Amino acid sequence: MLETLSKNKIKWIKSLRLKKNRNASDVFVVEGQKMVEELIRFYPEYIEFICTSGAVPKFNGLIYLTDEKTIKECTSLSTPSHHIAIVKKPTFKPNAAKFVLALDEIQDPGNLGTIIRTADWFGVDQIVCSKGTVDLYNPKVVQSTMGSMFRIPILYVDLVNYLKQTDLNIYGAMLEGENIYDLNLKKEAVIVIGNEGNGISKEVQAVVQESVHIPNFGKAESLNASVASAILLSEFRRRS
Amino acid sequence: MLETLSKNKIKWIKSLRLKKNRNASDVFVVEGQKMVEELIRFYPEYIEFICTSGAVPKFNGLIYLTDEKTIKECTSLSTPSHHIAIVKKPTFKPNAAKFVLALDEIQDPGNLGTIIRTADWFGVDQIVCSKGTVDLYNPKVVQSTMGSMFRIPILYVDLVNYLKQTDLNIYGAMLEGENIYDLNLKKEAVIVIGNEGNGISKEVQAVVQESVHIPNFGKAESLNASVASAILLSEFRRRS
Repeated sequence: MLETLSKNKIKWIKSLRLKKNRNASDVFVVEGQKMVEELIRFYPEYIEFICTSGAVPKFNGLIYLTDEKTIKECTSLSTPSHHIAIVKKPTFKPNAAKFVLALDEIQDPGNLGTIIRTADWFGVDQIVCSKGTVDLYNPKVVQSTMGSMFRIPILYVDLVNYLKQTDLNIYGAMLEGENIYDLNLKKEAVIVIGNEGNGISKEVQAVVQESVHIPNFGKAESLNASVASAILLSEFRRRS
Repeated sequence: MLETLSKNKIKWIKSLRLKKNRNASDVFVVEGQKMVEELIRFYPEYIEFICTSGAVPKFNGLIYLTDEKTIKECTSLSTPSHHIAIVKKPTFKPNAAKFVLALDEIQDPGNLGTIIRTADWFGVDQIVCSKGTVDLYNPKVVQSTMGSMFRIPILYVDLVNYLKQTDLNIYGAMLEGENIYDLNLKKEAVIVIGNEGNGISKEVQAVVQESVHIPNFGKAESLNASVASAILLSEFRRRS
């Protein structure tokens, strides 16, 4: 079904840059040919409609033909592509997860997206984010997850309460923790990663059972949060 | 020394967003209070001058007092800070490095910056980049290195020639490589990381001696280049 985009629709798409508008409509924006093609292939049921100023994708739903000027109005990327999809938010239910990543106030959208993609690589069952973590549907998060956001349940929770109630072993990444290379790590685990500047908050630290640390062989003061997450996930998986 | 910034100087700072202008002047731009303070503390000899629209930093050299409007004109950040430093490019000499990271056409500035920071954490002696790798002095690279760019020699080379001449063991990250967790890794090594979309180029693959791979436990198709670099560096270091 090919249609032309109305001014109101364009305005509405632009409004989705803000979290409150995404929340009100329960949709978000996916951009780029590769990402949109992956959506059509694997998750067509989530697509509300697609806008294209380029080749018309093979999609059995609503497609709006637009021009580059309109795409430029709608995009939140600095180099806009020809394809934009408006997508329903997946509904995630808490599951009986055994291998969980917990994020305490991650602020950088690129970090959150990369962490989700890495968690998908290492077979994380569920991601829980503190309420103050950057919004999953922020355009920069969406772009850097590379589709992984549809494959892992991602929940925003009261993190202290969640950790108090879980039966899993709770590990936290902290500078003063034990050397991760030397530890016996339990398979059924929650790994807590803290904020980029401040690390894990005091309230969350109080419920962490074992603090772990990636040894420093050089002079950098810290590791990027997505890099630290990746190394910890790799350490847990190589022993399992 | 406190002075006021001339229109010509503002124009020149703005021009440094382009690689050719940075090359012509042999300087680059560092932004943000934390980064500028680190420069003053550890690498004052590299600073040409500092512009500030906020608190005047303790620096024994040339400082221009500006206003927010001027900083906004000069910045390449979406959220400008009050501090901009114009900095001489460090001159790196090839050293007798034993633990080297080689980057084959990394394109994303954030990835390059994060890789440099991670390499500094894991005590990499030297980074060699193919000529087509994104410029080290790109503002986004500079911001994400967090100061590590001054601590590791980073050279742009003909990567195939470099690898042909080195005595170190050459490992390459490839999807069809051996499981990194099970391998005996030699300490004196070059680890080659490929381009975000295409991996290691054919010409470079031809001189890689051992291809290695991070096992996939989930459904993501690939790992971010900075994440893959981090896990490989961690794997080499935990055995040394």
